[in-house]
Amino acid sequence: MHELRKDPVIGRWVIIASERASRPTDFIVDRQMPSGGSCPFCYGSEDKTPPEVLAYRAPNQAPNSPGWRVRVVPNKYPALRIEGPLGRRAAGMYDLMNAVGAHEVVIESPDHRAQLADLTPAQVSEVLWAYHDRFTDLKKDQRFRYILIFKNQGAEAGATLEHAHTQIIATPVVPKKVMEEIQGARLHYDQRERCIYCDIVHQEMESEARIVTQNEHFIAIEPFAARFPFETWILPIVHAAQFESADAVTIDALGTLLREVLLRMRGALDEPPFNYVLHTAPTRGDGVGEFYHWHLEIMPKLTRVAGFEWGSGFYINPTPPEVAADELRRVLPEQAARGAT
Amino acid sequence: MHELRKDPVIGRWVIIASERASRPTDFIVDRQMPSGGSCPFCYGSEDKTPPEVLAYRAPNQAPNSPGWRVRVVPNKYPALRIEGPLGRRAAGMYDLMNAVGAHEVVIESPDHRAQLADLTPAQVSEVLWAYHDRFTDLKKDQRFRYILIFKNQGAEAGATLEHAHTQIIATPVVPKKVMEEIQGARLHYDQRERCIYCDIVHQEMESEARIVTQNEHFIAIEPFAARFPFETWILPIVHAAQFESADAVTIDALGTLLREVLLRMRGALDEPPFNYVLHTAPTRGDGVGEFYHWHLEIMPKLTRVAGFEWGSGFYINPTPPEVAADELRRVLPEQAARGAT
Repeated sequence: MHELRKDPVIGRWVIIASERASRPTDFIVDRQMPSGGSCPFCYGSEDKTPPEVLAYRAPNQAPNSPGWRVRVVPNKYPALRIEGPLGRRAAGMYDLMNAVGAHEVVIESPDHRAQLADLTPAQVSEVLWAYHDRFTDLKKDQRFRYILIFKNQGAEAGATLEHAHTQIIATPVVPKKVMEEIQGARLHYDQRERCIYCDIVHQEMESEARIVTQNEHFIAIEPFAARFPFETWILPIVHAAQFESADAVTIDALGTLLREVLLRMRGALDEPPFNYVLHTAPTRGDGVGEFYHWHLEIMPKLTRVAGFEWGSGFYINPTPPEVAADELRRVLPEQAARGAT
Repeated sequence: MHELRKDPVIGRWVIIASERASRPTDFIVDRQMPSGGSCPFCYGSEDKTPPEVLAYRAPNQAPNSPGWRVRVVPNKYPALRIEGPLGRRAAGMYDLMNAVGAHEVVIESPDHRAQLADLTPAQVSEVLWAYHDRFTDLKKDQRFRYILIFKNQGAEAGATLEHAHTQIIATPVVPKKVMEEIQGARLHYDQRERCIYCDIVHQEMESEARIVTQNEHFIAIEPFAARFPFETWILPIVHAAQFESADAVTIDALGTLLREVLLRMRGALDEPPFNYVLHTAPTRGDGVGEFYHWHLEIMPKLTRVAGFEWGSGFYINPTPPEVAADELRRVLPEQAARGAT
């Protein structure tokens, strides 16, 4: 069983793999992006993954066979295991628990070469529906306090498989970064009785300088204190703490805007590696409904200048968000779509 | 003038370069490690850097000429500028200030091919003396609240020049990560009247499982909740909040242990890229003397699995710290020294 260990000073939880420990020689190999071989996420390889937990496919098709449009499977090498009790305990002054949780993979399309941005708006929305449906199901497990949905595209962003996919990790603790956002938002709410993210949306709409694009339901901005060049946040315009409360119209609107933003990034940055992370309220709500505001943070990985940020929490961003927004606005998204010239 | 901008929700400061903004095309080039050309850190290229602010060299040598052993120069492309007022101000709901500070480079030796681990213990100590002397000098500037000393080795760790060097950044704000450590340590002290890092040192010495090596003054451990495989912390055994208060015996002991740890990492991991960051008290002390404990955090960059950590603060470490400590203990450091077989 892997372990969840807590840093005693700053309270950060870390998943420590203790079953199959990586020995030094593993890393020497791992520095190259794995390549070749038959892809476990393509049609016909359904038996190379654990059995699917969700798939969108035509009626009357057998599970774990070709024909699906979006498919969700447990991660074959999960960071957290679904079985077992939490086992919270102490080791001297330290805190640890069993690495209980869920670790799933959303295979975004059967097309090995298609990136998320290459899908149609309806297909992107269907990927978001898979997030939504898995979120809703995992939330029922009382052991889980948070559900992290994130995507790595490109080797520099940590992707180890080329075929487009998203990861879902359900954890028995709330990640530190989410706690910090909640604390900051709570402080603002206590002082002003307003959601700080609603204030951000309002101010950005007034100034316009950092808006990339928007539609009726969502706004895409370069945040004022962006850590990374071309970091982009997509926020619901109307206050909402929980991603899973989004209705069909909202999910479709997010799919449309997310696809457009990814195409704009491609147009401006030539297939940048990126991560995105869905930030939403803890599964139990935790009383944050009035002041937390779910959103998606997209972080292109363009610089390696970021060496010391890991240790200090201090960031250097060589591209002002206003410049990045301007560059992204200039792109004609449909011209960046694959095949277009 | 660059700007320092504060994230309104979680209070993280970011340096935003606004003078010479990086345009998208810059990044497309930047993905490769810059190479070739004559090195500005070698003998005979002293005029390719700004004039030195410190150099250890034989008496009667002219400044900015060959003959130095360690040389410190202002960064030619500084993230923060030494001139000007802080200019704290608001932009609507946001906070910002001028990017005032210092940004210097410690050139660790004249040898282009020598890494820090290749230097003698005395030479490593001299590099640490350069940290110490520059720290003490920069601390006199009342505008600076923190002095960050960090090293990037290897392209994957963010190094853009091959010639071994360390960076020093003096900032008008205390980095968020340091604030978090101070808050966590203060909480522990308020409850127990003990330094939490002293408690860590004590517990690690008792259990021994995560000790890499130690000498009379310092202990090198794999932290209990290590974020990265082979993450290693070097802590003074006796309580001390401020790096700059270290005396000659202490600096020499750190030089010896740091070199040994780097050689052990080389022996176990085959020239791993890494970052290290010196964690010490803010320049004004900030009343943390009783409960903060300076230390050095070394973070090998072996995995890219870390994609989502940026967004969540949640880490997955595939190598238990106990396994890493064991691997590092097995290495015979002098056999890992360059030239040895």
